[in-house]
Amino acid sequence: MTSSALETLEMISGGVTAPQGFGAAGVSAGIKADNGLDLALLVSDRPASAAAVFTINRAQAAPVVVSRDHLSRSGGVARAIVVNSGCANACTGDAGLQVAREMATETARLVGCPVEQVLVASTGVIGVALNIDKIRRGLPVALDALAGDQGSLAARAIMTTDPFPKEAAARVTLGGRGVADIVIGGMAKGSGMIEPMMATMLGFVTTDAAVSQPLLDRALREAVNDTFNAITVDGECSTNDCVMLLANGASGANVDEASYDAFAHALGAVCLQLALGIVRGGEGATKLVTVTVTGAASAADARRAAKAIANSPLVKTAIHGGDPNWGRLIAVAGRAGVEFELSRAEVMIGSIVLFKDGRPYDEAAPEAAMYLESKDIAVSVNLGAGRASSTVWTCDLSAEYVRINADYRT
Amino acid sequence: MTSSALETLEMISGGVTAPQGFGAAGVSAGIKADNGLDLALLVSDRPASAAAVFTINRAQAAPVVVSRDHLSRSGGVARAIVVNSGCANACTGDAGLQVAREMATETARLVGCPVEQVLVASTGVIGVALNIDKIRRGLPVALDALAGDQGSLAARAIMTTDPFPKEAAARVTLGGRGVADIVIGGMAKGSGMIEPMMATMLGFVTTDAAVSQPLLDRALREAVNDTFNAITVDGECSTNDCVMLLANGASGANVDEASYDAFAHALGAVCLQLALGIVRGGEGATKLVTVTVTGAASAADARRAAKAIANSPLVKTAIHGGDPNWGRLIAVAGRAGVEFELSRAEVMIGSIVLFKDGRPYDEAAPEAAMYLESKDIAVSVNLGAGRASSTVWTCDLSAEYVRINADYRT
Repeated sequence: MTSSALETLEMISGGVTAPQGFGAAGVSAGIKADNGLDLALLVSDRPASAAAVFTINRAQAAPVVVSRDHLSRSGGVARAIVVNSGCANACTGDAGLQVAREMATETARLVGCPVEQVLVASTGVIGVALNIDKIRRGLPVALDALAGDQGSLAARAIMTTDPFPKEAAARVTLGGRGVADIVIGGMAKGSGMIEPMMATMLGFVTTDAAVSQPLLDRALREAVNDTFNAITVDGECSTNDCVMLLANGASGANVDEASYDAFAHALGAVCLQLALGIVRGGEGATKLVTVTVTGAASAADARRAAKAIANSPLVKTAIHGGDPNWGRLIAVAGRAGVEFELSRAEVMIGSIVLFKDGRPYDEAAPEAAMYLESKDIAVSVNLGAGRASSTVWTCDLSAEYVRINADYRT
Repeated sequence: MTSSALETLEMISGGVTAPQGFGAAGVSAGIKADNGLDLALLVSDRPASAAAVFTINRAQAAPVVVSRDHLSRSGGVARAIVVNSGCANACTGDAGLQVAREMATETARLVGCPVEQVLVASTGVIGVALNIDKIRRGLPVALDALAGDQGSLAARAIMTTDPFPKEAAARVTLGGRGVADIVIGGMAKGSGMIEPMMATMLGFVTTDAAVSQPLLDRALREAVNDTFNAITVDGECSTNDCVMLLANGASGANVDEASYDAFAHALGAVCLQLALGIVRGGEGATKLVTVTVTGAASAADARRAAKAIANSPLVKTAIHGGDPNWGRLIAVAGRAGVEFELSRAEVMIGSIVLFKDGRPYDEAAPEAAMYLESKDIAVSVNLGAGRASSTVWTCDLSAEYVRINADYRT
């Protein structure tokens, strides 16, 4: 990464419509019972390079199947993304597949583009039929509302149990030949069923940079790995997870190998802000928890141990209760199936050492308990087995998580 | 398994002291803050064949290290087991190891046997020093109280957050040469931090059959695999898990290859009753959930998918809330990393089909919701990928689990 790139990165407002040439809308199509916003439309004024990562869940929802197909048939070009909330259109059989295809067809007709240039996403309850008539009635309303300042309404229209919308945007000056400003914007949703594997909950990122499809694909995969794929709320990977990235070139600036690092850095910053938003808004979450594992024998071990800690109900409840229970961190590291050397292991809560050299430092427990009262918590475990490290983000586990998920459909 | 063996299996009362030649005691040594029972002693009146399985957590507690060492040095012979609750003696370094050794030494001196014939176990908070003086003062009291009808007090003395003690015993007539009755008894504890891997929380099983050490070891591993290793409360594997089995031969009956099946069947029945007791008494549990996976490509896939379902917070909260949310079962099966074919998959809650042939059967949802009001729930998922199957047991996830674990040390 060039230092000039770092110097010119600026986080801005505007979400998916912050870059030039993108319009968005969020309307109510009557899919949600409460008549809330439930249909989002995102349109580029010209064909854009498109890249996406999808859930690795083997029960892939209909919109995932259709979007994957369209991306392949269009050779990585898209004009529009249509998203509904309130219904996941997952496990809905051939009928559901037909509905997802019709969503794309109708959008393509209204936007005036080939159907394979439309990507589709859905989120909500699994196994319920999505009413295509409601989508058909909602789409023209969304097209009418489409505007370059409506990113935040689109971000609201993709929410389910999310307590707040997730948006991010960054302006960055590309290095390389010539100096040009480009903008990257994004929105995401996700609150429960969150442990993306190779993909995540719904995330949509736009940029007015011109980026070739192979480079765009590489940038998205790298960014997702360290952001959306490094978060977990409850260890669940959904049937509908996807992150889509459109680059329409409206800024006139081109991303090439010389300016790639600056672009990738900014893309990572946008994705991280969206991903951390998902964790902060995790079901029942009261704290954002940064889990860092160091001293691992390999990067895979580090990620695996960090994920095991981040998904441990005993660790998450202890943090919820403000209990500096480092023993649970050791116990999880020990069962994570990774190289682990107890005599060289170390546990810190914040910067407070609680276990080191094979023995507890319980005199530090009161200070650690005070630290745990804050909303942003860092815990770290050194596995004592090597030099690799990994950071993941999660939230605490509260009784509210249980209430939300015991009552989700009733 | 011979049919005559099945006919003569009878579940009885008495726990670990149901078999002949075993005495037990449960006393208060002042380790628990509330002066509850916290020291259990189990003694055979003669040297017994001994087998044990231990946690695969890499952070092994001191008593695990010591018991493993003693079992190896004695060649699989034991006279006594000493167990304390209120303190796990885990992550306590060399000092903790010394305490575990002294627990054994003192017990051996009082019982009058070689130190390596004493096995040690501890359960409670991790990372707190175990006070050896309290153990030293408690042990003679326990020895005085030792009796052939005190199994239930020992079962109480090993409890931590357990809402009730777990005991089981069976009388069985061995086949083979001659016909003789033998008795198998057991006790167990465990309520949170429960997903045993190759071992479990604390379980202690006794029998008055004479069983060679290799045969005893085989019988224990087989029984544990289908019982203690097939349960999960919260997916956590503790630093202290172990199951120990003593066979003292006091009945005069010998288990050989001919009578092995009858013995193994009875041992399995005792272990299953103890294991299900752990699940029923799981932290915050209100329901026992039997998860059966069929149609798997392999036994390993079947177990893995069943465990993923049994550990899914979204499945566990849905069952807690009485929501027949079969979509969550499909979603977990799809992300479990096993062969899965959605078009051939099937989900049942009780005997009610909710998903089959790629489509929902939502007309059955009200009946399934009524079924979910009971305390004993069965769910099953056919992966549509083969013929292997597996059953595991878990409990629901309630707000009470969070409350217990957020406040555990305070």
